[in-house]
Amino acid sequence: MFKKILIANRGEIAVRIIRACRELGIKSVAVYSEIDKDALHTQLADEAVCIGKAAAKDSYLNIQNILSACVLTGAEAIHPGFGFLSENAKFAKMCAECNIKFIGPDYEAIELMGNKAVARETMRKAGVPITPGFEGIIENENHALEIAEEIGYPVMIKAAAGGGGRGIRIAFNKDEFLNGYNTAKAEALTCFGDDRLYIEKYIQGPKHIEFQILADEHGKVVHLGERDCSIQRKNQKVIEEAPSLILDEELRAKMGEISVKAAEAVNYKNAGTIEFLVDKDKNFYFMEMNTRIQVEHPITEMVTGIDLVKEQIKIAYGIPLDFSQEDIVIKGHAIECRINAEDPSQGFRPCPGTIEQIIFPGGFGVRVDSAIYGGYKIPHCYDSMIGKLIVHGKTREEAIMRMKRALGEFAIGGVNNNIDFQFDILENEDFVKGNFDTSFLKEKLVIE
Amino acid sequence: MFKKILIANRGEIAVRIIRACRELGIKSVAVYSEIDKDALHTQLADEAVCIGKAAAKDSYLNIQNILSACVLTGAEAIHPGFGFLSENAKFAKMCAECNIKFIGPDYEAIELMGNKAVARETMRKAGVPITPGFEGIIENENHALEIAEEIGYPVMIKAAAGGGGRGIRIAFNKDEFLNGYNTAKAEALTCFGDDRLYIEKYIQGPKHIEFQILADEHGKVVHLGERDCSIQRKNQKVIEEAPSLILDEELRAKMGEISVKAAEAVNYKNAGTIEFLVDKDKNFYFMEMNTRIQVEHPITEMVTGIDLVKEQIKIAYGIPLDFSQEDIVIKGHAIECRINAEDPSQGFRPCPGTIEQIIFPGGFGVRVDSAIYGGYKIPHCYDSMIGKLIVHGKTREEAIMRMKRALGEFAIGGVNNNIDFQFDILENEDFVKGNFDTSFLKEKLVIE
Repeated sequence: MFKKILIANRGEIAVRIIRACRELGIKSVAVYSEIDKDALHTQLADEAVCIGKAAAKDSYLNIQNILSACVLTGAEAIHPGFGFLSENAKFAKMCAECNIKFIGPDYEAIELMGNKAVARETMRKAGVPITPGFEGIIENENHALEIAEEIGYPVMIKAAAGGGGRGIRIAFNKDEFLNGYNTAKAEALTCFGDDRLYIEKYIQGPKHIEFQILADEHGKVVHLGERDCSIQRKNQKVIEEAPSLILDEELRAKMGEISVKAAEAVNYKNAGTIEFLVDKDKNFYFMEMNTRIQVEHPITEMVTGIDLVKEQIKIAYGIPLDFSQEDIVIKGHAIECRINAEDPSQGFRPCPGTIEQIIFPGGFGVRVDSAIYGGYKIPHCYDSMIGKLIVHGKTREEAIMRMKRALGEFAIGGVNNNIDFQFDILENEDFVKGNFDTSFLKEKLVIE
Repeated sequence: MFKKILIANRGEIAVRIIRACRELGIKSVAVYSEIDKDALHTQLADEAVCIGKAAAKDSYLNIQNILSACVLTGAEAIHPGFGFLSENAKFAKMCAECNIKFIGPDYEAIELMGNKAVARETMRKAGVPITPGFEGIIENENHALEIAEEIGYPVMIKAAAGGGGRGIRIAFNKDEFLNGYNTAKAEALTCFGDDRLYIEKYIQGPKHIEFQILADEHGKVVHLGERDCSIQRKNQKVIEEAPSLILDEELRAKMGEISVKAAEAVNYKNAGTIEFLVDKDKNFYFMEMNTRIQVEHPITEMVTGIDLVKEQIKIAYGIPLDFSQEDIVIKGHAIECRINAEDPSQGFRPCPGTIEQIIFPGGFGVRVDSAIYGGYKIPHCYDSMIGKLIVHGKTREEAIMRMKRALGEFAIGGVNNNIDFQFDILENEDFVKGNFDTSFLKEKLVIE
């Protein structure tokens, strides 16, 4: 097994990966920015190397410094976590060139799935259902308009290099389309340094259903069931749950099989997620593949008992999966609430600051993945997500009750947060009934 | 279902019960002593009533005040937790007389099992193996000596009204016996107000194996497998695990069946535990029955997925168990470490004080049951146990690694604690190999 792994990330996911390393008897190396000197991941790792100033571009996106830290500490592998460099094919390629194992798929798969238009085309060829859309190169505004009118409104405009819900516009008519096209193009350039767009049919009121897959380096691919991530605000997930209420055994098996096929089509290795939109008639369409561990991976761990981050590390070392599709059993129900330092009453404005007091929930079926502690100062320069609260129950009903009691125990003094907002969602009658899609928060909780 | 339950306890078990109530939609009433005004259980409950001064006899053992709090708040039932009044038959009887449901067995069963000599005799008649010993009344010191020599040394002298390891002496010869007899008698009087003793064969190097049972009020009794609680210091459990390495399926089934038979013999209702000693040849002997929820109940919850406290409440309300023996499957391995505010280097002297900083472990498979928080002042007048750290893993090996990493993350500033001591046990080669019995800490870790 690896003797030492460097974690090219921060916050709760860095802590999550350190935990997996420690349980596998592997030394961990944290990298940190100057502002993260006292961060939990910096403290918990066996070694920690400062890689630059607070701004992500100077530290957590600083490939040169991260690779130097790896060489300096003698780490044999890098776990990129999510965000930052996790889906940067260039970084994965450079790791390979430096003889450092990148814990994730080959850079070719990252590159392929990273370009949303190419990914769509690849999936289409592999027999994965995709939304009706345009696969080629959009020449100009007029060409784009032609495409939109051929597909038929409503359409969705997306950044080809996008992800995480950024650079997306929806248009119900020509005016909205022209406006959306131009703003999406500008946003794509700012966010991803790549203004290529693609256009597809907009599925109204869909469910966001994603399948977790694991693929070892010996050709074995399995899926671990689905996650329902339909509770979103501006395409950012807020609550995730597994399994989904809308999937029966037959549909689960079918979508699972197609997910495995999708992974096989790109010679995928390690953990990955196939995201689908599911419409009211239970038609499903490939949306994108995330070629990394995801924020919401713990709910899959809770219902399957499989430690995804440990599996990632074992796969990267070349160890074959020691279970098969038929060994994977979904037990009970898990829910995750993302805990953010933000002010829901002020348009969810991020609220960095010092945590003066903190009481974590605990007890049966409750898992906290976080990197905060009493006295910790949340920096202003990173994501506002400061932790994840995950519960498991025998039934969805029990999981909801457990989450509500855990949220009720969770006390964070000193910084605004979304705990009460999460509670409101769980109390909502339509949420409880399972009567929701991706428009839920906007329509039922009337938030922007 | 009950609308409101009073919790006649404090600390982590009170918090544990509040959690179960909340998840069942039941209002909770905490009772607290003056010194526990800021305790977590006092804060978390829906209502809180002060029941007296800090000393337990004035508050948590003050039956009158607790019953008054119950009437005052309109609580329909009392959960006694463990310790304090949990095995006080008089209290259970008074609850019944006040038309308050005592969440536990009928007072007759508590009384019967509370007298260790009567319990032994009852179990013997029910066909439960007991250690060779004397069942009758010990007349005086000479009579006691005769009994001891008839049984054959080594023998064990125990308080008939005892429990929790108090009032126990072991004698390998006549001198030790006479000394032990007299000190045990005095200790029994002090601790339990009852100086009756009984004498039994002392099983050398035994394992402490206990079976969890659940019995509803309609005659259905099931067992939930065993816990191995052999890691003890002065008869106080330190680490518990489930399942035990020394039981195979056959022995588990046999001991489980006998445990169910034992419960049926006393018309037992609610949750209970049958404690056995298991010798090197895997002979097992009934030790005692605990007629309450136990400190170590979470490890059974982790391997069975059954919430024992919720089951207690449902049973007390008269709801039949909704599962049968064959539905209970033991999955994976769970370990619990009791976290105490004490100084292992000073003979485990209790160390109350103020918690200046605290970082709890988290992540996959980790459960924290505690009632402490940053700034909390641990009072001097109660038990030194301030929390429980419980882990679950697919295998015992994974559970041990997980516990070690969780202990490594657990940081308590301001009060001495046994976290490092727990770590040392888990690192011990004999512990890892499963090569241990109740003498382990004394012999292998050379502690008193």
